[in-house]
Amino acid sequence: MISEKMKPLVNNNSAIRAMFEEGKRLAAQYGAENVYDFSLGNPNVPAPAEVNQAIIDLVNEEDSVFLHGYMSNAGYEDVRRTVADSLNKRFGTHFHENNILMTVGAASGLNVILKTLLNPGDEVLTFAPYFVEYGNYVRNYDGNLVVVSPNTETFMPNLEEFAEKIGSRTKAVIINNPNNPTGVVYSAEILTAMADILRRKQEELGIQIVLISDEPYRELAYDGVEVPYVTKFYDNTVICYSYSKSLSLPGERIGYLVIPDELTDSEEVFGAAVIANRVLGCVNAPSLMQRVIMRCIDSKVNLEAYDRNRNLLYNGLKELGFSCVKPQGAFYLFVKSPEPDEKAFCAACKKHNILVVPGTSFACPGFVRVSYCVSYGQIERSLPAFRKVAEEYGLC
Amino acid sequence: MISEKMKPLVNNNSAIRAMFEEGKRLAAQYGAENVYDFSLGNPNVPAPAEVNQAIIDLVNEEDSVFLHGYMSNAGYEDVRRTVADSLNKRFGTHFHENNILMTVGAASGLNVILKTLLNPGDEVLTFAPYFVEYGNYVRNYDGNLVVVSPNTETFMPNLEEFAEKIGSRTKAVIINNPNNPTGVVYSAEILTAMADILRRKQEELGIQIVLISDEPYRELAYDGVEVPYVTKFYDNTVICYSYSKSLSLPGERIGYLVIPDELTDSEEVFGAAVIANRVLGCVNAPSLMQRVIMRCIDSKVNLEAYDRNRNLLYNGLKELGFSCVKPQGAFYLFVKSPEPDEKAFCAACKKHNILVVPGTSFACPGFVRVSYCVSYGQIERSLPAFRKVAEEYGLC
Repeated sequence: MISEKMKPLVNNNSAIRAMFEEGKRLAAQYGAENVYDFSLGNPNVPAPAEVNQAIIDLVNEEDSVFLHGYMSNAGYEDVRRTVADSLNKRFGTHFHENNILMTVGAASGLNVILKTLLNPGDEVLTFAPYFVEYGNYVRNYDGNLVVVSPNTETFMPNLEEFAEKIGSRTKAVIINNPNNPTGVVYSAEILTAMADILRRKQEELGIQIVLISDEPYRELAYDGVEVPYVTKFYDNTVICYSYSKSLSLPGERIGYLVIPDELTDSEEVFGAAVIANRVLGCVNAPSLMQRVIMRCIDSKVNLEAYDRNRNLLYNGLKELGFSCVKPQGAFYLFVKSPEPDEKAFCAACKKHNILVVPGTSFACPGFVRVSYCVSYGQIERSLPAFRKVAEEYGLC
Repeated sequence: MISEKMKPLVNNNSAIRAMFEEGKRLAAQYGAENVYDFSLGNPNVPAPAEVNQAIIDLVNEEDSVFLHGYMSNAGYEDVRRTVADSLNKRFGTHFHENNILMTVGAASGLNVILKTLLNPGDEVLTFAPYFVEYGNYVRNYDGNLVVVSPNTETFMPNLEEFAEKIGSRTKAVIINNPNNPTGVVYSAEILTAMADILRRKQEELGIQIVLISDEPYRELAYDGVEVPYVTKFYDNTVICYSYSKSLSLPGERIGYLVIPDELTDSEEVFGAAVIANRVLGCVNAPSLMQRVIMRCIDSKVNLEAYDRNRNLLYNGLKELGFSCVKPQGAFYLFVKSPEPDEKAFCAACKKHNILVVPGTSFACPGFVRVSYCVSYGQIERSLPAFRKVAEEYGLC
């Protein structure tokens, strides 16, 4: 009954589903307190109090037909202007409302821009390890995802291989900064080098290459590290943003695309993206949440909570002899597996009720992703279990 | 820069945009009070008071991480169970939560089920006049929309031509009941006849044909008319529902798909649809609105307001000599153009500051759509302007 394109997705999904079911089974058997689920990317820090207050105020103050009604498919103009102004203030950019397209989260934003840009057979480059859905998003529009292999020492982009893999069918590049699953942040130097390569290749090949920066973790950066704003490095840039993590609203599906004036054919691309957003069936980003964003444009989640988790888990695992690049952003550790087959390592962890995701899911075998968007208590309780795993591998 | 597939969409969009701009221009020139915009399908009746109360209660009562967080991609289980129970109570069906997939409105629901089902070249039948986006949704998945020509006397489906147009590549049929733009409601007799044809053709051709019923206007039916529940007529049925009109929440993007057990390979189709919802980037229907639906499952908008509008506008236009099937559902009149070229008629209306949509936009030239989801006052004020148009055409 289902389409040929969906079949591999359904088959592949079973593995993830099996893991989810396993977590539920373990929790039922040993009690939720005694299962250490580090597999999910669901924020455990609540939305800032201003968000719920804004919701209540909006419902009390605004006309229902306006608050819950249709607006332009791109989103309310004043919301888009507020987003543009806020970015301009923070990053010295010069966006206006017609650079901002409100979307049903970053995942939908990525779909919208890929539908806007891709012809069948076009190539989209990305850097391993990468969020596994990128492949699905690109294939939705009959594009091919081309993966640059990881630098497993630093998890910084392998720019030499990147330059080699750009070809006449390259239409876009997706980066994720700060990065899921490694937590690394690309510096200004790296973005400058990447932009230089892209400009050179555009000229050499006589093509346009769009750099799509997927930034749901932008506000989750630690140690005072700066996450550079990518449009300032390269003209053909599109930003995909989400409030899922920055305001802990993942279920609400609210984010935006930035399509700057500097992008080639910017106005046409923006117009087409608005249509893509409509015909993909989103029509517009959820209206009440758009109004919330406008009122909470300067709100932040409690980053301290994630930072405490990061330090506890990172230091704890290091002391036990595990190896890991200390992340500067997002809420993941990407830990080296003590044996080459990281799936066997995941299985060894599971024996101690620890659930982590194999790096193969991010096109980077030999590593596992450990999410620390969990309670501090779960991390504390898990460390003795991690110790047992470390002892089994002779790490401590 | 943009993809080949997007180009015709961008070109076609300019016409609609021009109309929108024209409306704004007229309002600026003559004052909004003196412009009679009947072009939009944006509900003007507010959401029931329970909706805003539920929002406030949820924010006050529920944990923020739960309320705004990720859930299963299909939606919260208890919300889906509540929807299933409500349908069972109303229509004598026997749905459970794994028949219900919460979606980002009906438009997204249509995309999800079409992505789930269609292979390139598959045909999807629909009946003119039809909502113009159906063609875009089908083409998103490289399907071909096949249009059954309208019966312009009754606007009931032309079942003879329907049977003729079903072929070996037919994968789905989309109906819209109550209908946009005509407002007609398909009776049990018509659905029985349609189902008989589908069953016969399935057997003859050895194929499965899915009847997709797009039902955003289900609750907007007048004169006590019953809108039959389509799953009771034909096993291979999928329902696309939206709360955009039934609770006046069009901007919030909340609806659901019903994929009943009786559908062939139902479980596989449901699983694939959940994945399609995820990889299209929706991920899940907005979380707060899902919880609102659960609390407001029995709420209704003020149908009386639409009914008053319907009678005022229908009777007013009839008295002036215009010709129109009296609608029993939705909030549109589909009025016969007094001259064959309905675009010329639209232009004549515009001279009197009346904005209506040409039937060509619904694959049904010779008619215009007049939306009555506007204020009663606008209809009252517009009738003298309609009189002038009628006089010009010698109708009165």
